[in-house]
Amino acid sequence: MNQRRQMHLGVFVLGTGNHIAGWRYPGAAQSFEDLSVVQEIARIAERGRFDLIFLGDNLASEPGMHPSFAARFEPLTMLAALAATTTHVGLGATASTTYNEPYNVARAFASLDHLSGGRAAWNAVTSSGGKAADNFGRIHPEHDARYEVAEEFVDVVRGLWDCWDDGAVIRDHATGRYIDPAKVRPLNHEGRFFRVKGPLPTSRTPQGQPIILQAGSSAPGLALAARTADVVFAVVQDMEEARAGYVALKSRMPGFGRDPATLAVLPGVMPVVGRTEAEARARLNLLQSFVNTDNALAMLSSRLGMDVSGFPLDALVPDLPLPDSSHGFARVMLAKARRERMTWRDLFNLTGAARGHWVICGAPESIADTLQEWFEAEACDGFNILPPYFPGGFADFVDLVVPILQERGLFRREYSGTTLREHLGLARPRSRLFD
Amino acid sequence: MNQRRQMHLGVFVLGTGNHIAGWRYPGAAQSFEDLSVVQEIARIAERGRFDLIFLGDNLASEPGMHPSFAARFEPLTMLAALAATTTHVGLGATASTTYNEPYNVARAFASLDHLSGGRAAWNAVTSSGGKAADNFGRIHPEHDARYEVAEEFVDVVRGLWDCWDDGAVIRDHATGRYIDPAKVRPLNHEGRFFRVKGPLPTSRTPQGQPIILQAGSSAPGLALAARTADVVFAVVQDMEEARAGYVALKSRMPGFGRDPATLAVLPGVMPVVGRTEAEARARLNLLQSFVNTDNALAMLSSRLGMDVSGFPLDALVPDLPLPDSSHGFARVMLAKARRERMTWRDLFNLTGAARGHWVICGAPESIADTLQEWFEAEACDGFNILPPYFPGGFADFVDLVVPILQERGLFRREYSGTTLREHLGLARPRSRLFD
Ligand SMILES: Cc1cc2nc3c(=O)[nH]c(=O)nc-3n(C[C@H](O)[C@H](O)[C@H](O)COP(=O)(O)O)c2cc1C
Ligand SMILES: Cc1cc2nc3c(=O)[nH]c(=O)nc-3n(C[C@H](O)[C@H](O)[C@H](O)COP(=O)(O)O)c2cc1C
Repeated sequence: MNQRRQMHLGVFVLGTGNHIAGWRYPGAAQSFEDLSVVQEIARIAERGRFDLIFLGDNLASEPGMHPSFAARFEPLTMLAALAATTTHVGLGATASTTYNEPYNVARAFASLDHLSGGRAAWNAVTSSGGKAADNFGRIHPEHDARYEVAEEFVDVVRGLWDCWDDGAVIRDHATGRYIDPAKVRPLNHEGRFFRVKGPLPTSRTPQGQPIILQAGSSAPGLALAARTADVVFAVVQDMEEARAGYVALKSRMPGFGRDPATLAVLPGVMPVVGRTEAEARARLNLLQSFVNTDNALAMLSSRLGMDVSGFPLDALVPDLPLPDSSHGFARVMLAKARRERMTWRDLFNLTGAARGHWVICGAPESIADTLQEWFEAEACDGFNILPPYFPGGFADFVDLVVPILQERGLFRREYSGTTLREHLGLARPRSRLFD
Repeated sequence: MNQRRQMHLGVFVLGTGNHIAGWRYPGAAQSFEDLSVVQEIARIAERGRFDLIFLGDNLASEPGMHPSFAARFEPLTMLAALAATTTHVGLGATASTTYNEPYNVARAFASLDHLSGGRAAWNAVTSSGGKAADNFGRIHPEHDARYEVAEEFVDVVRGLWDCWDDGAVIRDHATGRYIDPAKVRPLNHEGRFFRVKGPLPTSRTPQGQPIILQAGSSAPGLALAARTADVVFAVVQDMEEARAGYVALKSRMPGFGRDPATLAVLPGVMPVVGRTEAEARARLNLLQSFVNTDNALAMLSSRLGMDVSGFPLDALVPDLPLPDSSHGFARVMLAKARRERMTWRDLFNLTGAARGHWVICGAPESIADTLQEWFEAEACDGFNILPPYFPGGFADFVDLVVPILQERGLFRREYSGTTLREHLGLARPRSRLFD
């Protein structure tokens, strides 16, 4: 029997909710520095048979923009804590290729892969905001220069993951040999930006290679993704636009010797679910009534990479050139503003809700219909779910929408494996150093 | 009623045992890359009411020296996993001041302190082995230069921990203000080695300041410890020598405005416990019979900072000048060799057993007697226990020796607090930025 193509689902975790004012929703979690909050989120993700939970990161505090950007756990330590209290869900964290050393990143994710039994994923970002530079005594490199470093950085990390062959740990009680030295090699990388000898002090991990996530959408961002990523997070506001982006990304893969089926594209979407359309609408309205103007303006300025506090709120959003520091978000949001003739206030409300991501609001069936339509139109391979608040806003999606997707044969009812690689349907690679 | 001065106990965790061949002991754990092994160790530590468990680290793999140096978890991720499955024991990890950025170190330990409810401790090391340099495209700085960097590094980390005042997270539902901006400040550090703006994206942690551990024993190492450390790990082989070191360290503290009682000195000791002296001796002999000559020679060379494989094993150890790359271990081991007229083979056996640390072998009462004698002679404030193998070698200490110490009123029967700071009897500091 031919199995239907299956969706992949991830959840984007910000403890106080993805909505900028999610914490003000009745019953919502109040902190992103509370282990019990993220443990509850992980439990719900496993109940919903999600592929992965995913944590963003930023190497600077931005009080006043979003509560969970201001005060949060460091992602790797947080996911390691979750590794010990979950069994199936993939654990994805962001680490910057601009403000880290490849050796440290390779090691931390290798360790997480061991600790979790094969569930680690690294979101490789180049750090678009320049504020991190001030915390490292550095000048923030320009956009394309960051991606040049990122290309080499990712190769070094993957090379370090390949320094141990499977079966290197032999534990031979008869001879006292613990390791077979023939199965451990240095990497001896000497590149333009990095010199790294290796090996890591960590044996080959359960997934062989932890999963690589990517979320850039500029030309160099897409090139990096097409060459190296297993999962891509996309920013979308329109299905046709998403389809075009999907095709553009996948069509680059054969040029790198890759099968397009080995990359999952997951657009971000904030579902505001109600048992009825009216209830969903009321929930969104309540959330929007909580938005603090200063915070939403700071967020919108950050997303667009320019200070927008001077524009009159009720004027139409004009055509604007975007600076180097803008996110992929900016392009998608401005296109939507043009398409829908939005005012700054509209754009501001959109950013306050989902930080530039797509919002769908409705009853479970209609949300499931929309997700199915996008999936079947090959605008994506699944979704990066951004619940507006936790745990309720996520539990509603898992308990009301996921069963419909399962009923329709679009999403797994049970995990068939235990590693993230297995959830994604990807083979465990051999080490290229020993091939 | 006057309470007797209380010992502090830590356990040094190497999953395959501290003994170089511990994994070969019948029933011993076989891997340091197995979460269930370290969870079992943490459970035993809490059963024994230990102050902390402690993880060393090295930014290079050294296959063939010690199994747990070759293949291990990255310490911060491992301790974060333990944070989620333990409730009281302190969680100490090593991070290098030579091959990290202060912002990243401050953040990871702040996160661990939140995740564990106030149990994080940072062992600040300068990385004595030069091999790490090859993994970071760097030249290994010299000994004293490393300590100059370390002094500033520690100050930056502690400064970053102080950027948030208590009570900065207000979560005011009425106004929508989540953070009180008056209680978050940048550090704006501009020093000789680092420029770091801050603040961290992490609020003030449960301990206010995570605990600082130190293990250097050179003059600059002791100066750093006297100025900044809460706990010091010492290398000892002789009580008078240990007393002298204890006095030397504590007497430096008033010069830094510190009360000597606020620093706990914990010498490392490997207890080989048997129900009788004969059983203990048989255990040690069995362990020693497992030592692989190559591994022990590599370990001895590393400890002394020079290649010793050329010396005839049965010759007396001569007086040797020590290179910059030697550990504090070297001085203590060579002094012992002189005192006791040891051959290279003796020294080699000692290093194979406990990597240069002190070994005591005996029945529970006699081990307790020795620990009590050292403690009461003010040669130390407790001990850093290095079980030869896990879990049995640790369980024997906890189940046979700890109850005697408790019986004698030397060690707690129950935890009286939940943070490491409380176990150590240290007050929670105010932020110096807001004082
Ligand atoms: C869902 C999603 C999550 C992201 N998370 C992060 C993040 O945590 N940290 C970060 O620095 N950038 C993050 N980004 C930004 C992108 O990784 C990327 O840096 C940005 O889009 C600029 O790259 P580009 O110019 O190639 O688009 C995220 C983007 C998306 C779509
Ligand atoms: C118990 C103990 C544990 C240590 N753990 C580490 C470690 O994990 N990583 C490391 O680089 N050095 C470690 N060291 C070495 C010391 O931190 C220090 O770097 C070394 O003694 C050289 O410094 P010194 O010249 O001041 O003595 C340890 C030392 C002791 C006594």
